[in-house]
Amino acid sequence: MKLRIGYGFDVHRLADGHSLFIGGVKVPSEFGAVGHSDADVLLHAVCDALLGALSLRDIGYHFSDTDPAFKGIDSKILLERVFSMIKEKGYAVNNIDTTVVLEKPKLSSYIPEMQKVISTLLEVSEDCVSVKATTHETVDSFGEKRAIKAYACCLLIKK
Amino acid sequence: MKLRIGYGFDVHRLADGHSLFIGGVKVPSEFGAVGHSDADVLLHAVCDALLGALSLRDIGYHFSDTDPAFKGIDSKILLERVFSMIKEKGYAVNNIDTTVVLEKPKLSSYIPEMQKVISTLLEVSEDCVSVKATTHETVDSFGEKRAIKAYACCLLIKK
Amino acid sequence: MKLRIGYGFDVHRLADGHSLFIGGVKVPSEFGAVGHSDADVLLHAVCDALLGALSLRDIGYHFSDTDPAFKGIDSKILLERVFSMIKEKGYAVNNIDTTVVLEKPKLSSYIPEMQKVISTLLEVSEDCVSVKATTHETVDSFGEKRAIKAYACCLLIKK
Ligand SMILES: [Zn+2]
Ligand SMILES: [Zn+2]
Ligand SMILES: [Zn+2]
Repeated sequence: MKLRIGYGFDVHRLADGHSLFIGGVKVPSEFGAVGHSDADVLLHAVCDALLGALSLRDIGYHFSDTDPAFKGIDSKILLERVFSMIKEKGYAVNNIDTTVVLEKPKLSSYIPEMQKVISTLLEVSEDCVSVKATTHETVDSFGEKRAIKAYACCLLIKK
Repeated sequence: MKLRIGYGFDVHRLADGHSLFIGGVKVPSEFGAVGHSDADVLLHAVCDALLGALSLRDIGYHFSDTDPAFKGIDSKILLERVFSMIKEKGYAVNNIDTTVVLEKPKLSSYIPEMQKVISTLLEVSEDCVSVKATTHETVDSFGEKRAIKAYACCLLIKK
Repeated sequence: MKLRIGYGFDVHRLADGHSLFIGGVKVPSEFGAVGHSDADVLLHAVCDALLGALSLRDIGYHFSDTDPAFKGIDSKILLERVFSMIKEKGYAVNNIDTTVVLEKPKLSSYIPEMQKVISTLLEVSEDCVSVKATTHETVDSFGEKRAIKAYACCLLIKK
């Protein structure tokens, strides 16, 4: 059995007049996430965890945030492309555990849908994908509702 | 062998007139951690890593911070409950590595006791539980002694 | 097969008049990292991930930042010492995935050299060492170019 560990971290600013996509789900929110793509902080962290596990560089290396091809792009497409690289290397996802840090709104009711989206993209059962949420207890940009961040930690297994 | 990776992250504000519980140990400190429970940032991160490893949602899902049942509760009780869910699923802890980020006081002398508390609760030997400490180099809320955070990363193994 | 997971996190302030060492590579930069040693945030995070995986305490425990012996020391020497502890315990690195968070400059072109330095020190092939980079999107000390941080996540395997 050949295993690989991967870790991803991503941050986006929050602002008026943007949508808030998290884990492929559009979350109703006063503020949305700012970015070159659809700014889905969770899918970006997942992409980086998968790439990092197989030493395939990072999301910025593959999808430049100055390339017009990725302007406003649905991050599910980015994750699909990343996962196809993982499959080409002969690996599958054993499990992935993620954490979204956002002060508001509460994400609890959207999490099952996020897990469904991610597990479908990664071709694993839903119970192999965990999405957790927490606040930043009012401190720093995350606690002051000026930013959102996500962590992802994955274990890949050679097929 | 069936393995699962888990990851936990937690933050609490620091303030006068509160106790500082870390890893089940009361640490003498000018400032304590603010929270609905005893605000033990390390045990909360460990709970979330265990839950996340088996896609069992997060600590806020199981122990709502608006439920009076958890007001001021000893977080060792929360970790016990989480670990019983892990055991019910047939898993044990392979090892867990954690990091506490706190500007002051130095935690070094309290760490062996924290490792003992956590390893006892998780029914593993002490050398399967790591607690590390670092500062936030004076920057942001953690460096300015206004908050504490903890990371936990675990590997579970099917019995 | 015996596996262990490890996790490291490190922060350094940035300031004028300091060099910026990341992953053993001197990166040309307006601001450098402040620290007792050469302040290599990435090598420090890697040290902590390795130590944590085997419950060997943390980098501050082994290399005190008040000990003149470590004043200005090349962190590659620290990582060598940490890795010798890992080998003494009979473990090797399966793979390690890291993330450097720095607003500026872009690190992309320096990453292959960092991977080479770290993989040589850890006696694994380069494709077992991942270095990823991201910004902090202008927010907090990292986004305001006042600090740099790094995360490292490793899987060790018993030889
Ligand atoms: Zn992003
Ligand atoms: Zn908490
Ligand atoms: Zn350091």
